[in-house]
Amino acid sequence: MADYTLFTNPMSRGQIARWALHEAAADYDTELVDWQDKPQALLDVNPMGKVPTLVHHHLGHDHVITECAAICHYLGAMQAPELGPKAEEMADYFRLLFFAAGPIEQAVVSRSMGWSVDDPQKQGMLGFGSYEKAMDAFETLLSDRDYVCGERFTMADVYVGSQVDWGLSFGSIPKRQVFEDYAGRLRERPAYMTAKAIDMKLIEEVQNG
Amino acid sequence: MADYTLFTNPMSRGQIARWALHEAAADYDTELVDWQDKPQALLDVNPMGKVPTLVHHHLGHDHVITECAAICHYLGAMQAPELGPKAEEMADYFRLLFFAAGPIEQAVVSRSMGWSVDDPQKQGMLGFGSYEKAMDAFETLLSDRDYVCGERFTMADVYVGSQVDWGLSFGSIPKRQVFEDYAGRLRERPAYMTAKAIDMKLIEEVQNG
Repeated sequence: MADYTLFTNPMSRGQIARWALHEAAADYDTELVDWQDKPQALLDVNPMGKVPTLVHHHLGHDHVITECAAICHYLGAMQAPELGPKAEEMADYFRLLFFAAGPIEQAVVSRSMGWSVDDPQKQGMLGFGSYEKAMDAFETLLSDRDYVCGERFTMADVYVGSQVDWGLSFGSIPKRQVFEDYAGRLRERPAYMTAKAIDMKLIEEVQNG
Repeated sequence: MADYTLFTNPMSRGQIARWALHEAAADYDTELVDWQDKPQALLDVNPMGKVPTLVHHHLGHDHVITECAAICHYLGAMQAPELGPKAEEMADYFRLLFFAAGPIEQAVVSRSMGWSVDDPQKQGMLGFGSYEKAMDAFETLLSDRDYVCGERFTMADVYVGSQVDWGLSFGSIPKRQVFEDYAGRLRERPAYMTAKAIDMKLIEEVQNG
């Protein structure tokens, strides 16, 4: 058995977890999840049946990790500490990771659902304020650097970068130069390309029946 | 100058950051932020002017941390590693931290705004599915343990526990036994009580003009 089992569907955010697995050079098996008929092995470890779900078979225990940002950080911490944050990078690393998983995710989802408020007091309750404010803040945070932690790629970039990469592809993040440049740097990474090719092939197989 | 500067307002989630500072026994100064007249010192480090904003004055650098979950984890990592996760606790620690900062936060905010969808396919896009599904999952994740990582309190409990504690107080999280018991354990912590007393006193001072 490999060290990790990735429950995923190629047409899902499981792509983020797969990219993280390849960045961390982790040894893993893939279990494909059909939305209509979820495998019992997934429901046994995660009754919600959410993908991606990552299981780490470690020292006789099965550790279950969900939430893409958590999966990215976990894989760095366990498999590739050099891709985790150094002490002086921790503030940027965790700030951006939680900013992308919280306010940015919420801003993008709310917009896709057509949800918004104009009242400034209610905007304060939202955490992300408004879609425009969240995107401006995100742009500012990424504008003076190549990666989340500055000049060096870390596991935070797999998650934060996926939000930008997917957002640009689906039109849920505005096409600004800072975002385009950042996504461009990430798309050139060998682990990104390898992982993406695997999922693209799986999607093709599904579509060809 | 203290090691940390906390920009906060006592009637805000800054209470979570203050609790975290006390759990980590960090040396900090408080800068009170008036919503109507934000101090320049805050805008200098965080143009968004969001509270809480924590600044770590460290080795000649000012590290800025926002997002409550990031602040909790950062303070553990820098000041109180014994309250951070051991290798075998990492999966639970980061899974719950991101679950509470992502799906749970989104479920609570969406409900407070009156936003929901019934279409199961659209629910899939939401990440949290529905308020009910998110709460059931949250309850399951906390049901077989005293704390996020099992029997031991960690910095993840400051954030995850605050979501539960605040949610119960404001009626945004259902009064279920698992949530009540968990919040009850946390409210007895000396650092929780000390931090809460400081903010309650500040609120009283503001109200008495």
